Amino acid sequence: MLEELKQKVYEANMELPKRGLITYTWGNVSEIDRATGYFVIKPSGVDYDLLRPEDMVIMDLAGNKIEGRYNPSSDTATHIELYKKYTVIGGIVHTHSPEATAWAQAGRDIPLYGTTHADYFLGAIPCARDLTDGEIDKDYEKNTGLVILETLEKRGINPQYTPAVLCKNHGPFTWGKDAAEAVHNAVVLEEVARMARRSEMLNPAIQPAPEAIKKKHFYRKHGSKAYYGQSSK
Amino acid sequence: MLEELKQKVYEANMELPKRGLITYTWGNVSEIDRATGYFVIKPSGVDYDLLRPEDMVIMDLAGNKIEGRYNPSSDTATHIELYKKYTVIGGIVHTHSPEATAWAQAGRDIPLYGTTHADYFLGAIPCARDLTDGEIDKDYEKNTGLVILETLEKRGINPQYTPAVLCKNHGPFTWGKDAAEAVHNAVVLEEVARMARRSEMLNPAIQPAPEAIKKKHFYRKHGSKAYYGQSSK
Amino acid sequence: MLEELKQKVYEANMELPKRGLITYTWGNVSEIDRATGYFVIKPSGVDYDLLRPEDMVIMDLAGNKIEGRYNPSSDTATHIELYKKYTVIGGIVHTHSPEATAWAQAGRDIPLYGTTHADYFLGAIPCARDLTDGEIDKDYEKNTGLVILETLEKRGINPQYTPAVLCKNHGPFTWGKDAAEAVHNAVVLEEVARMARRSEMLNPAIQPAPEAIKKKHFYRKHGSKAYYGQSSK
Amino acid sequence: MLEELKQKVYEANMELPKRGLITYTWGNVSEIDRATGYFVIKPSGVDYDLLRPEDMVIMDLAGNKIEGRYNPSSDTATHIELYKKYTVIGGIVHTHSPEATAWAQAGRDIPLYGTTHADYFLGAIPCARDLTDGEIDKDYEKNTGLVILETLEKRGINPQYTPAVLCKNHGPFTWGKDAAEAVHNAVVLEEVARMARRSEMLNPAIQPAPEAIKKKHFYRKHGSKAYYGQSSK
Repeated sequence: MLEELKQKVYEANMELPKRGLITYTWGNVSEIDRATGYFVIKPSGVDYDLLRPEDMVIMDLAGNKIEGRYNPSSDTATHIELYKKYTVIGGIVHTHSPEATAWAQAGRDIPLYGTTHADYFLGAIPCARDLTDGEIDKDYEKNTGLVILETLEKRGINPQYTPAVLCKNHGPFTWGKDAAEAVHNAVVLEEVARMARRSEMLNPAIQPAPEAIKKKHFYRKHGSKAYYGQSSK
Repeated sequence: MLEELKQKVYEANMELPKRGLITYTWGNVSEIDRATGYFVIKPSGVDYDLLRPEDMVIMDLAGNKIEGRYNPSSDTATHIELYKKYTVIGGIVHTHSPEATAWAQAGRDIPLYGTTHADYFLGAIPCARDLTDGEIDKDYEKNTGLVILETLEKRGINPQYTPAVLCKNHGPFTWGKDAAEAVHNAVVLEEVARMARRSEMLNPAIQPAPEAIKKKHFYRKHGSKAYYGQSSK
Repeated sequence: MLEELKQKVYEANMELPKRGLITYTWGNVSEIDRATGYFVIKPSGVDYDLLRPEDMVIMDLAGNKIEGRYNPSSDTATHIELYKKYTVIGGIVHTHSPEATAWAQAGRDIPLYGTTHADYFLGAIPCARDLTDGEIDKDYEKNTGLVILETLEKRGINPQYTPAVLCKNHGPFTWGKDAAEAVHNAVVLEEVARMARRSEMLNPAIQPAPEAIKKKHFYRKHGSKAYYGQSSK
Repeated sequence: MLEELKQKVYEANMELPKRGLITYTWGNVSEIDRATGYFVIKPSGVDYDLLRPEDMVIMDLAGNKIEGRYNPSSDTATHIELYKKYTVIGGIVHTHSPEATAWAQAGRDIPLYGTTHADYFLGAIPCARDLTDGEIDKDYEKNTGLVILETLEKRGINPQYTPAVLCKNHGPFTWGKDAAEAVHNAVVLEEVARMARRSEMLNPAIQPAPEAIKKKHFYRKHGSKAYYGQSSK
């Protein structure tokens, strides 16, 4: 069942160690099949060296396991909240990638300092608020999803335009139209986080990049007037 | 004698260069066989490229060499003190891994800033006090072990819950139920040390993560209510 | 047509990921054939894993595509301005290499702090001014080229002696007598940017290197009195 | 002539890119044969990918080329001064390794902050004074050697106990009993420089390690009472 999707999700998960985003099993990728309403996600805590496409777990949006011999990722409930709220989200990634996580631990948004950032994200990467003790105690992973959604809504962020949120004291979640794009965005986020940290070291009085350059680069690659790449032909 | 254990200890030692924790011969791993009271440890100063399982040295807890053509690690006496005090410790690692050692040289505990840390360590990684000149002059390596034990006791730290100490101006010791887990903890410690350094750069007023998130993540992976991974099934 | 040049430009582009200067498709290299007035440039947004020499695009200096199935790099208009102004420029590189881009985002020149820098660049690497909103809105990539030229002229910089400019909030452009030398300079720039950042961390009161050592090292490798390497015999 | 020594010097040079100490041709290693008074050194500016043992150049201590088709390293005159002054020096390395060079550019000694440093160097790594304009203008490379010697003498440093000097605004020179040991020390210096930078970030009020721990670790590995490794048996 959903064998092709399992293969895609497997490959997207295997990109995480290859791209230096994870140590051991510290990450998970999923992708949803909107026709069936099922999504495929990595099993929890299985070594990447041993992982196979058939180990991927099929879940529904009510949190029921549809197929799979393993427990799904412990962050499954977070993925569910994002899929339920935004149908434009087709794939989701969570990692503890070292640069993005350093910002999450610092409790800070990543300001948009340049075109590398603006090519992918139309504004700062937001850092979510602390969860309350109650939110942590009960349904922690579900509440993690809800606080991501709250962050996007309160700030008026279009999740297609800024496909990433930092969970405070935790790490990043990114998404995209499918698992591969979500991983791509996780890689970009890590690079952007690294550059931003270094730019702040070099200039403590640094300001975000001008609005004009931000919009120029974002819309050079996204939307109806995009002219980067080969798709505009 | 203890051929299987030698193989395990050999493999655990070989993880150190593979994971980027050591340069040249700057590390050692041991594991104890509680049935015989013997432990197996890397020989001192032998190139990792030349190391073989049969080069591992068998020692007893009185510091006598039971088997082996080489001298044991110069830090053998430190390992002995830890094994003698805590029977829950089955494997021990010492490295000069660059990020953890930077904290040891700075003489600072590594605060718990996020869930990457809390998934493995239930609180700050403590940095031990300076050894006195007398402790350095005579039985230095034994006294290094004793000051690790003193650090755990004075702070009321359960060594199963925070399996790492930084030796001041020196470097980290980590442990676990066996050599492989001790190495795993050494890898995590290095990642945690790197993230913490970067988080402090990004937010000089940073505070440790809230208690609730610390406990949630630690007990999600440890103890009777753990639900991370596959073991809870 | 220009098959040999396409091969050279292809190889120069492939150096970018190999040398750690780019993530995904974040860079482009071109080289000009001054006899025909045509230049060869990487296509826009094509995966490096899939790129072949025959995918390189041939352009003229009026911005017309002469040959190629793909769109040329979106930065083509920037390359054109540099080739038109300076006939000594034979190859051009643009990247988002992480260390140089951190300086560009910080809006700072890279001071000349040592001989590694002086072996290749006779002075600070200049950071260009902000583009105006008008310059961004219309003919952005052409104006990027014009502001690079303005930077060189206003500062009295000989482009053969300091073959690099940082575009503010964007990233570096480097050049050379051909594509290979332009890439070489991009690699050196990245190293120099990294060292300069670290030197400033170590000594906040740091000053640029003395004039005498700067000139000694530059002219040891460049010009009629050079004696580094094998070419001077 | 001296074929075995050429092979050793070739292999020592090839360690530099392998260990991440150099970019392009930014380094050189030599070793002396005290019986003949000749030393073997890398040619200047030849790609490491193309380098062969037979390309090594044989020189005498008066600076005459004895054998070799290539020009010797442009830093040959620096090597000569060190070999002439100290007969205990058998091999010399110069690099622009990024961490050590950052200190050289900052014009700072590397303080001894821990045992990683003390295992190899009995005190801070000294940074030499600026060369005068006259010293730079004429016989620059010879004067670089002389200022290294002056640094050791003025500070009362035994070159066997602290086998490294940073040349201001330039980079490190290290040495040892042969080329291999000199390279080993260059690798250690780079690690020590990195750790020291990070320790200062973590604790701006950091102090050098206590004398007792410095001496304990140095003499644990060096001199008649050494007990690290296998040599003490």
